[in-house]
Amino acid sequence: MIVVLKVGSPEAEVERLTQEFLSWGLSPEKIIGKHKVVIGLVGETVEMDPLQIQEASPWIEEVLRVEKPYKRASREYRQGEPSEVIVSTPNGSVTFGEHHPLVVVAGPCSVENEEMIVETALRVKAAGAKFLRGGAFKPRTSPYAFQGHGESALGLLARAREVSGLGIITELMDAADLETLAEVADVIQIGARNMQNFSLLKKVGAQDKPILLKRGMSATIEEWLMAAEYILAAGNPNVILCERGIRTFDNKYARNTLDLAAIPVLRSLTHLPIMIDPSHGTGKWEYVPSMAAAAIAAGTDSLMIEVHPNPKKALSDGPQSLTPERFDLLMQELAVIGNAMGRWIVEPAMAAV
Amino acid sequence: MIVVLKVGSPEAEVERLTQEFLSWGLSPEKIIGKHKVVIGLVGETVEMDPLQIQEASPWIEEVLRVEKPYKRASREYRQGEPSEVIVSTPNGSVTFGEHHPLVVVAGPCSVENEEMIVETALRVKAAGAKFLRGGAFKPRTSPYAFQGHGESALGLLARAREVSGLGIITELMDAADLETLAEVADVIQIGARNMQNFSLLKKVGAQDKPILLKRGMSATIEEWLMAAEYILAAGNPNVILCERGIRTFDNKYARNTLDLAAIPVLRSLTHLPIMIDPSHGTGKWEYVPSMAAAAIAAGTDSLMIEVHPNPKKALSDGPQSLTPERFDLLMQELAVIGNAMGRWIVEPAMAAV
Amino acid sequence: MIVVLKVGSPEAEVERLTQEFLSWGLSPEKIIGKHKVVIGLVGETVEMDPLQIQEASPWIEEVLRVEKPYKRASREYRQGEPSEVIVSTPNGSVTFGEHHPLVVVAGPCSVENEEMIVETALRVKAAGAKFLRGGAFKPRTSPYAFQGHGESALGLLARAREVSGLGIITELMDAADLETLAEVADVIQIGARNMQNFSLLKKVGAQDKPILLKRGMSATIEEWLMAAEYILAAGNPNVILCERGIRTFDNKYARNTLDLAAIPVLRSLTHLPIMIDPSHGTGKWEYVPSMAAAAIAAGTDSLMIEVHPNPKKALSDGPQSLTPERFDLLMQELAVIGNAMGRWIVEPAMAAV
Amino acid sequence: MIVVLKVGSPEAEVERLTQEFLSWGLSPEKIIGKHKVVIGLVGETVEMDPLQIQEASPWIEEVLRVEKPYKRASREYRQGEPSEVIVSTPNGSVTFGEHHPLVVVAGPCSVENEEMIVETALRVKAAGAKFLRGGAFKPRTSPYAFQGHGESALGLLARAREVSGLGIITELMDAADLETLAEVADVIQIGARNMQNFSLLKKVGAQDKPILLKRGMSATIEEWLMAAEYILAAGNPNVILCERGIRTFDNKYARNTLDLAAIPVLRSLTHLPIMIDPSHGTGKWEYVPSMAAAAIAAGTDSLMIEVHPNPKKALSDGPQSLTPERFDLLMQELAVIGNAMGRWIVEPAMAAV
Repeated sequence: MIVVLKVGSPEAEVERLTQEFLSWGLSPEKIIGKHKVVIGLVGETVEMDPLQIQEASPWIEEVLRVEKPYKRASREYRQGEPSEVIVSTPNGSVTFGEHHPLVVVAGPCSVENEEMIVETALRVKAAGAKFLRGGAFKPRTSPYAFQGHGESALGLLARAREVSGLGIITELMDAADLETLAEVADVIQIGARNMQNFSLLKKVGAQDKPILLKRGMSATIEEWLMAAEYILAAGNPNVILCERGIRTFDNKYARNTLDLAAIPVLRSLTHLPIMIDPSHGTGKWEYVPSMAAAAIAAGTDSLMIEVHPNPKKALSDGPQSLTPERFDLLMQELAVIGNAMGRWIVEPAMAAV
Repeated sequence: MIVVLKVGSPEAEVERLTQEFLSWGLSPEKIIGKHKVVIGLVGETVEMDPLQIQEASPWIEEVLRVEKPYKRASREYRQGEPSEVIVSTPNGSVTFGEHHPLVVVAGPCSVENEEMIVETALRVKAAGAKFLRGGAFKPRTSPYAFQGHGESALGLLARAREVSGLGIITELMDAADLETLAEVADVIQIGARNMQNFSLLKKVGAQDKPILLKRGMSATIEEWLMAAEYILAAGNPNVILCERGIRTFDNKYARNTLDLAAIPVLRSLTHLPIMIDPSHGTGKWEYVPSMAAAAIAAGTDSLMIEVHPNPKKALSDGPQSLTPERFDLLMQELAVIGNAMGRWIVEPAMAAV
Repeated sequence: MIVVLKVGSPEAEVERLTQEFLSWGLSPEKIIGKHKVVIGLVGETVEMDPLQIQEASPWIEEVLRVEKPYKRASREYRQGEPSEVIVSTPNGSVTFGEHHPLVVVAGPCSVENEEMIVETALRVKAAGAKFLRGGAFKPRTSPYAFQGHGESALGLLARAREVSGLGIITELMDAADLETLAEVADVIQIGARNMQNFSLLKKVGAQDKPILLKRGMSATIEEWLMAAEYILAAGNPNVILCERGIRTFDNKYARNTLDLAAIPVLRSLTHLPIMIDPSHGTGKWEYVPSMAAAAIAAGTDSLMIEVHPNPKKALSDGPQSLTPERFDLLMQELAVIGNAMGRWIVEPAMAAV
Repeated sequence: MIVVLKVGSPEAEVERLTQEFLSWGLSPEKIIGKHKVVIGLVGETVEMDPLQIQEASPWIEEVLRVEKPYKRASREYRQGEPSEVIVSTPNGSVTFGEHHPLVVVAGPCSVENEEMIVETALRVKAAGAKFLRGGAFKPRTSPYAFQGHGESALGLLARAREVSGLGIITELMDAADLETLAEVADVIQIGARNMQNFSLLKKVGAQDKPILLKRGMSATIEEWLMAAEYILAAGNPNVILCERGIRTFDNKYARNTLDLAAIPVLRSLTHLPIMIDPSHGTGKWEYVPSMAAAAIAAGTDSLMIEVHPNPKKALSDGPQSLTPERFDLLMQELAVIGNAMGRWIVEPAMAAV
């Protein structure tokens, strides 16, 4: 249920109403939009009558029911206004959102050693990336495959953050590592395989760091939004949705099927920012440039691109990684589309100052 | 097997070689590229030795085996050079191909009456479309649903062609209608449900009109290229591949999953031109603009977009059709991306003169 | 709409009603069940009032609306009574249906020569099969693969029919071959790739031979029933539905995913007989025995099993073919489950006399 | 790598070899089969030469390489011999395995209160079930849906175990609950959504209770076996694989597509016992009987069936639950197929004494 307040509603009345809704056993949530204030109501509202709620205050303009199973994640919940996920990084704060410049996240699949991660950080920063991605804990299909360097890799990420000033995005696989990981990560990634690990979702929902929620390999759009809802419902409003390729009947030439069509669907259903990962999404670096360009044209708010100083020797996901040189070139190509869409920052290096 | 001839090979020698290969029981096919002439060899070549073939003439530069199951459709078959499908229309000839401006095809799902089809033709032409699409024979899931107006609709398409000068693209469902349909159609469409109707593929391969081959709903990229190969092998080199949405595990918010990731895959595997149909691909007109823009950014050679003067009263596929007004606007939006990609014609209206 | 008549309704009244419904512009179809006569009404019935129809005769017991999009194929259309597809073969008539013994169809993927097809026919007959399957026209992914021996293979099937007395099931790919093929075939097969070749469905619906309709590789149950509806609506009530494996995300160890779960679903939705093809369904002969047994336990009415005298030298589908010896053994194994289910004929060899 | 020892190899030599392999940096694992002893070697064996290993002892018969990515889970690893998962329950020990009677697990989706869980336990035991299933922690798509009664439900399961003597199977979602849950559970279930929660797999692999590993909704057979390998590699050899329906393109009439074809595939690839869950697999109780029968005919070692005293009032999964009466009847029907397959215990009630 959404309670839209009239323009100019006094702060005290909003507070009074919030208390009243609490006394009714509901969870009210105040959302301050550009023009209006809205109170979102989650709880046992199925049998409530919107007209009756409206009588709670003359300052209520209208009361609307959210028909979708995801409430807080739905676009209606914010009266159509996109949310902004603002992340503070050493280089300054960066905002993910529909009305903001495209944010580029780049880096290797896994953190291998200090030299490679620091070098990559500096290279991708110079090319215009705002965040460094890099796995410390790696979800691998085989127990015998390289599982990431774990905690020691977190230390290397901290070093790369310090040197480059980039924000850090890295994956959490086990709630036991949350505290340690959150000391380094500016954004915590929940991977595709854990998208419906509801225990983990509740835990990252109960802390403050923004969450990058990757779509499960065969998750429907609705299941994905419900997974986001777990995080939102636990109290963390900062969720970014990342499409990384879905599983279909064909994986001969591409590892996954990158679902760019999810972009307009998400845009119409949710206020949350959207990220596209064409590297995992296709599994081949050759396909990354055209898919990255397409994602921008389709309206993505962010891109995640794998970059490795020496893809052929990468401990994981080499075939889908760009070299730093190829990434430089790609950023120049993307600037053309990004500018055409009005989503590119003119001087990436300066914007951070 | 591909026989690459040296630059400057005499025409007579090419002819002699062709005859020799014929005498060996193979099907040689001469392909004239920008710089070189290549002879494609299809037939029982598995046990042949490329070196032995090379001895057939001192003008042979090299002999390469095509490892893929599709031979004529493979990019190697044309030494990496994209093919061009040139279609002559009343307004002049239009070329589909990687190094040519984007071709826009627009029109209603089915031809309903003269007024609507002529009006639509004039409107989409004014906005920059080069072809009118419109179904006379409609493949419908239910035998009780509107099946298209059949032959009489072909007459109306002929009328729209005459009035607008646009080329006509319409679907063939039954080989028995081929002759009649080919009198009106400039490009013959084979629909998704008939992509592996091999009898039909052989028949359209044995005639001259270019073929628009839609991807089957769950066809792998390889099956699709093999279907194209049926047409090419039967003698018709003019095939355009059209992606129109695949079937995945999710169809709640979109009718199909538009597979834009097929664009770079096709580009690397085949020389054939690529078309994207975001209207069928998503099933919702609201998603068409972002998907059309993305398709251009990803490198498509052509777009097929459903336009209906009154979508709410459409006999089929109303929810995915744009109004002519919305289509006008879309073309202006697409021009921005199209220009950024260097694939847009500056003055669409004039280019036809 | 279904018009259920009271027990003992006079024949003349049924005839009068049929004429009256015809005069209303509907297509009435008389269905004689064990206890009652039902008149199925297809046509523009959406706006009709069942109560008003009921007034057409005092012999009408009730009038029911069929809510499903498939009408004639729905179980309601026959008041829950399964239909029987009775096929006359040289050895006598064989009935496919829920209350009849399981019918086994066996034979090679394609007809290769007279010796192999006659030998196979005699061997599978001896083991208890009632029909011989064998392809004359083969739908192959590649235009360069063996396409079947065509018309000459039909002659060989006729010879095998004569010698063994078995009924013949063979696939029709092109309407142009219908007449020739129908001279030999006792049941005409429409393959998976043509399941939505609506032109072909209409044509086989307009002739008399029973149709074996294979499920498309990614056809939903509803699309499959709608395809059957095309045949039924064109006048041919004898349709058998054959599940042959669907396409999913996994095809590493099995060629397709045999969808045995379709059996109870079909049973609840339609009155048409069900056949299972575990050979195509799995693509490996090793998996055929357990899947055939499971199909019987799940309630299938028929099985189609590939048998080839020398699978290793088969021109197509060798890996999924059983040898005649292995087929003998399988039939003995299946008899145990078949008897447990009460669907096995005690003396297969004698029953044909 | 598998080291097969000659019949009669002295125990001391086996021990010596084990120590030697350890000194090479490998993880040797002794597997005692009916006739022979095998030492499984996991570790960096890629570059090792089987012939060189063979020289380690004259008692080595042969050394074989396991080509599959799953080692301990592969059938070769046990020289083709199926493993047995023996679970001790208050009523005596129960064995899951290919050469043992079918084990039936039954009970409600979630534990709702003492009366319902105790009643259900007694009813399903009387009908022949050996285990009670019941969820304390429930993975639900929505954060607002009933999440299970948690720890208090574990207490009720303990009570039902005490009263009925049945073994208990219940799902673990969070490693933090492992210790508490293991006090009650005789078999710990890892749900479909956590099949690739590798942190959780490692933790349940490092404890003693047998694990029921449900297949992920879109997990390939290989990914599933690799998930089992995580548990085996961590030291727990007692894993049962449970198929519970996969996600395909069709979910209109059934919630999932029950993949019975996985049975022969698993049988050929792994020695681990197989369970089928037709209740989740279809989502409709009406489809459960035919699918349960089919699973037995296909060779499953175990069945998991949802039973609820009042399905219409169930807090979760009511539509797929049988009533106790319907379950009684089902067990009688299944006995027919079970006996035909030689996998049914003659007197279920007595066997527990």
